[in-house]
Amino acid sequence: MKQGYRNMMVTNPTTAKCCHICKLPGRVMGIRVLRFSLVVILVLLLVAGALTALLPTVKEDKMLMLRREIKSQGKSTLDAFTLIMQTYNRTDLLLKLLNHYQAVPNLHKVIVVWNNIGEKTPDELWNSLGPHPIPVIFKQQTANRMRNRLQVFPELETNAVLMVDDDTLISTPDLVFAFSVWQQFPDQIVGFVPRKHVPTSSGIYSYGSFEMQAPGSGNGDQYSMVLIGASFFNSKYLELFQRQPAAVRALIDDTQNCDDIAMNFIIAKHIGKTSGIFVKPVNMDNLEKETNSGYSGMWHRAEHALQRSFCINKLVNIYDSMPLKYSNIMISQFGFPYANYKRKM
Amino acid sequence: MKQGYRNMMVTNPTTAKCCHICKLPGRVMGIRVLRFSLVVILVLLLVAGALTALLPTVKEDKMLMLRREIKSQGKSTLDAFTLIMQTYNRTDLLLKLLNHYQAVPNLHKVIVVWNNIGEKTPDELWNSLGPHPIPVIFKQQTANRMRNRLQVFPELETNAVLMVDDDTLISTPDLVFAFSVWQQFPDQIVGFVPRKHVPTSSGIYSYGSFEMQAPGSGNGDQYSMVLIGASFFNSKYLELFQRQPAAVRALIDDTQNCDDIAMNFIIAKHIGKTSGIFVKPVNMDNLEKETNSGYSGMWHRAEHALQRSFCINKLVNIYDSMPLKYSNIMISQFGFPYANYKRKM
Repeated sequence: MKQGYRNMMVTNPTTAKCCHICKLPGRVMGIRVLRFSLVVILVLLLVAGALTALLPTVKEDKMLMLRREIKSQGKSTLDAFTLIMQTYNRTDLLLKLLNHYQAVPNLHKVIVVWNNIGEKTPDELWNSLGPHPIPVIFKQQTANRMRNRLQVFPELETNAVLMVDDDTLISTPDLVFAFSVWQQFPDQIVGFVPRKHVPTSSGIYSYGSFEMQAPGSGNGDQYSMVLIGASFFNSKYLELFQRQPAAVRALIDDTQNCDDIAMNFIIAKHIGKTSGIFVKPVNMDNLEKETNSGYSGMWHRAEHALQRSFCINKLVNIYDSMPLKYSNIMISQFGFPYANYKRKM
Repeated sequence: MKQGYRNMMVTNPTTAKCCHICKLPGRVMGIRVLRFSLVVILVLLLVAGALTALLPTVKEDKMLMLRREIKSQGKSTLDAFTLIMQTYNRTDLLLKLLNHYQAVPNLHKVIVVWNNIGEKTPDELWNSLGPHPIPVIFKQQTANRMRNRLQVFPELETNAVLMVDDDTLISTPDLVFAFSVWQQFPDQIVGFVPRKHVPTSSGIYSYGSFEMQAPGSGNGDQYSMVLIGASFFNSKYLELFQRQPAAVRALIDDTQNCDDIAMNFIIAKHIGKTSGIFVKPVNMDNLEKETNSGYSGMWHRAEHALQRSFCINKLVNIYDSMPLKYSNIMISQFGFPYANYKRKM
């Protein structure tokens, strides 16, 4: 190539001219330009090669992670959820409910938060009645705390949590639909139990349900919370909960209540919009009357409702704001039950 | 300043040195540098001055526009919508409906697309029955085309369009609620009439409603279109429609049908997700039986339903894809009608 260039230099009159930028003779200039061009081309090739080498590796890592997850459980953990069910003194209900929930589509695993301190978990019984469709892990707790179910469980592999109280039976169609809704709104609590806070002229809030004054001046009602005890939410919110001020954990421990109200505060504050979306359940039952344990749920305590209002005001104090936002969006499944969208004629 | 500089030159040894870049004496170099610096500084000052002069003017213009709009209409055009109602041969229904719609909250203006070619618009009558809450503009058309209502009307100032057929009465609570839903999903058609396309083993699609086979294997039904004739959508989609291939306009003109199917195709393709969200109407009526004109709507033509299926397949051909996506989300207003969320016990 050098040979050819020298020939070009001799025959091409332009290269023989003086470069007006610099005083060097054309021929030397020519070689320097050639060298410079070659260096630039080489550098570009190296950069391109580096990029080509880097990009697929990043993609491969992601693909590898996905494949590993799929292999280990037989389904992608992006399309599945983990049931977290906390239980205290209602093992008969728990086992009845587990028989139902273990068969729900897209369920990855069940984590049972065993608040029966000192009592053995029913692993043996459970295993003797296997095989089961999915793994169920009984986690013995050290103390009977309401907030035990909000720990960051290492066994949890999915992006979504289904949290259900140990006396609540939610039908499979409801769960399948609500999960599909959560997948479209993964930053919000998608659940079946709406509640609201009500402001009063004194600035003190009350907690309640449909019986309370609807806020605002329009038609209908509003909700500002979706209770986590029958809901889907993003598993990263468990980590978010653990990062909250100690005062929040103390409030929940003192009242043995309000972990769900706290979660709604935390999430609303985090996302800057309403914490949850209400999905109207078609078939959801409370089984607490069916228990043989004689144990009634916490919400039967005389002070329960007042505690909930108390918690709201305490949380406003802790966060120095009221982050809850109202919504009146109610989601149902189109065409289920049959023809539920037919309008009145 | 020149005086001071000359003194500096004499006393400052560095300026007396030769500039190594150029062979001119230091003093001449110094003056040239000074002049150059002054020119640069002057230019920068002019640019800065220009920017300072321009910026507030732009903001002021926007503020002025907003204020003018607020003054003229009493509401911000971000929180208001424009009703576009196309009409043909049903002026009695039109005027009855206008009496209702003109009083809907957050309505900015009405644009009546007058497809009665050769017949005078009822401006005189309308004005004689004033004053009216909002402006109503009757736009005489040059030809009776179905797609006339999808023009980019210069009178349209709002981000949202409410499009209603001239025989459809939608109650105010339904409109107020659906508009609030649209504000949360401004890239989708939020409306009251869901429809779907149904694939067949031959690859040929059919158009239909609840009577047709639900796609997929789950519970309930799905919809893939929300008809624009009773809906809110983003006004920029009118511009998007005008930018579509001529074949789309030709199809609508040939069938005098399918402008709404086309809009769903266009929007689904544009946003990569389902084109619309279905809001279940509480009180919506079709008044076509009440007209004295003897004119029945287009959908009574024998070939109407077959045309709709025909249009779907034509549009798939034009766009070389099926962009419509299914959804089973049905939205209702929480607590309206009263206690509509109470679950079965």
